[in-house]
Order: sequence, then C-alpha cells, then structure tokens
Amino acid sequence: MDFSIRAAIVEDCKDVARMNLDLATYEKVPEQVTVTQKDLEQDGFSKNPFFQCLIAEVPQQHKSKDGYTLIGFALYFYSYSAWRGKSIYLEDLYVMPEFRGQGVGKALLSKVAQQGLAAGCHMLNFTVLHANQSSVDFYLRRGGFDMTSDVGYHFMAFEEDAMQQLART
Amino acid sequence: MDFSIRAAIVEDCKDVARMNLDLATYEKVPEQVTVTQKDLEQDGFSKNPFFQCLIAEVPQQHKSKDGYTLIGFALYFYSYSAWRGKSIYLEDLYVMPEFRGQGVGKALLSKVAQQGLAAGCHMLNFTVLHANQSSVDFYLRRGGFDMTSDVGYHFMAFEEDAMQQLART
Repeated sequence: MDFSIRAAIVEDCKDVARMNLDLATYEKVPEQVTVTQKDLEQDGFSKNPFFQCLIAEVPQQHKSKDGYTLIGFALYFYSYSAWRGKSIYLEDLYVMPEFRGQGVGKALLSKVAQQGLAAGCHMLNFTVLHANQSSVDFYLRRGGFDMTSDVGYHFMAFEEDAMQQLART
Repeated sequence: MDFSIRAAIVEDCKDVARMNLDLATYEKVPEQVTVTQKDLEQDGFSKNPFFQCLIAEVPQQHKSKDGYTLIGFALYFYSYSAWRGKSIYLEDLYVMPEFRGQGVGKALLSKVAQQGLAAGCHMLNFTVLHANQSSVDFYLRRGGFDMTSDVGYHFMAFEEDAMQQLART
C-alpha cells in the first residue's frame, strides 16, 4: 500500500481528534476523551509544545471509505529516566482499522525510534492494554520489553481531583 | 523535622547522582544506573531540558550521618495524554532512608502536583514497583489510581538496541 509518514502540522489536529475518538469509541469509553481539536492545536503547536506528532497519510486515490486520507498517527514526547537518561515516550499509536496489517503502524513506530535516537535517547517507553493481545504481540515481536510482567512495574495516575488534594497538603 | 523543598540547580546534580546510585544499590541493581552527574547537568540544565527536579534539603545541624544536607529529590517532566491532554510525569521520588516517615516524600509529591496544576495539567502519572508495598501504599493512600491492576495497562520499553533495530526497519 502507498502511504507516507510525516510530521504533523496544526491543520492535522481535526483528524487526530477524529481518530482519538474512534479509538475510544472502539474501546467503549468515548467519555474518556476530554481533549478537543482546539486543545491539540494549542498544546502541540504553540511555543514549548507538550507533544510531537507523526501522521500517516495515503494519496487521494486510496482514501478511506469515509473519504479520509489521514489514516494513522503517533503522538510522543521526550522524557527522562533517572537511571538511563534521555528517553522518548510513545503516548499513542493508532492506525484506522481498514488500513491495518500493511506496515503503517510499523512505519510510525520506526520513525518514532529514529526521532528518539537522533535526539540521543536511550529508551522508548509506552503503555499498552494487556488485554489487547494483537497490540502486545506487535510490540513484543519487535523487541519490546514488558516491564510490568517481567519486573513488576505498575503504571499509576493521580487524576485532577487527586492532584488538587495533593497540592493542598 | 525541619526541611525545605526547592527547585534543583545544576550544582545539585552530584547529590542527585549519589541518591540515584543509593536507590539502585538498595534495589541490588547498581549496574542499571548509566546516568552520570555530567549527564544530569547537561540533560536537565541546558536549553530545552529533558526534566525538572525538586530538592529536599535540611539545615546543616540536621545533616545526615554521612554529612549530607540534600536528602531527597523528585524528578519529573511534562507529558501528554491523547485523551486527557496536558499531564505531568513523576519519574523518580526519593528520600534517604534515615529521613523517611517525616513528610518529606509527601511534600515533594505535593509540590510536583502544584507544578502540574499551575501548568494546566489534568493528570500526574508515574510507575511504581509493585513489590515495594510501602511505596504502593503511600500513593494509594493519597488517591493514586493503579492503572495496571485496575485497567490492565502494562508499562513497556524498547531499550537502545531494540530502538536501533526499529529505526532500521
């Protein structure tokens, strides 16, 4: 299949917001998505952006059945490990279902690794839903290391309410 | 106990490197620490730093038995959730054993939450070794949410070799 990977521009945020919601709807938790197109535009494309984004694109003649040419994305940011140093964090990797199995996800992941290495990063981190076996397999096949299963790391969060409580103490 | 929390300066990196190694030695994996004092200085205190750091400090009269006044740190960076938006990631939180149980960790965590909220973050993420029960309890007691136990997220990594292989494909 003919596709290309490129850095996202602010005009892509509409499509990223669409794919975000597609994924959350597929996972039956659309209410979890509070990020809007406007948030993505502001947070990723102003001075000191919070994230970087890569876009997978097909030419017009291969557009999706709904008419889309932007068919996948990878959202990442630079991070740090106190023990290992400069790292890169893959927050989200998504390919529209009708374009899967054709190397798009692999190409996005490869480009994220290239960006990380170019910036001097020693590690690429991400989380994956363990129940999503095809996704887990995708990463393990490519040399991914499961730090939860193998070392016992749990991924934790304080949501905004809990953050506010922490901040007051 | 008398202590203060402040933003780290480049001169603190020697102490952060020391505490880093103390922790890894305690966990019996000192070889996992490849980050040097110089790395911390360059990665955290040049233009576009990869991390931010808070320091817990005691006055001279309360110095540690080995003579240290810098007795804990929190290393964090800004991150992003494709669904939730601006986030903050706590990479490491450490308090020297002889100063534990006196609110230093709590004060560091509180300050990280404050920094995150001030920057408009909706979530504070981190990982914890599940076997470290006192640490897990510390976070759960304060409203932390275990996204591995409760939702099934696994924390994954590609180490540098695997990144290079990804980048070549």
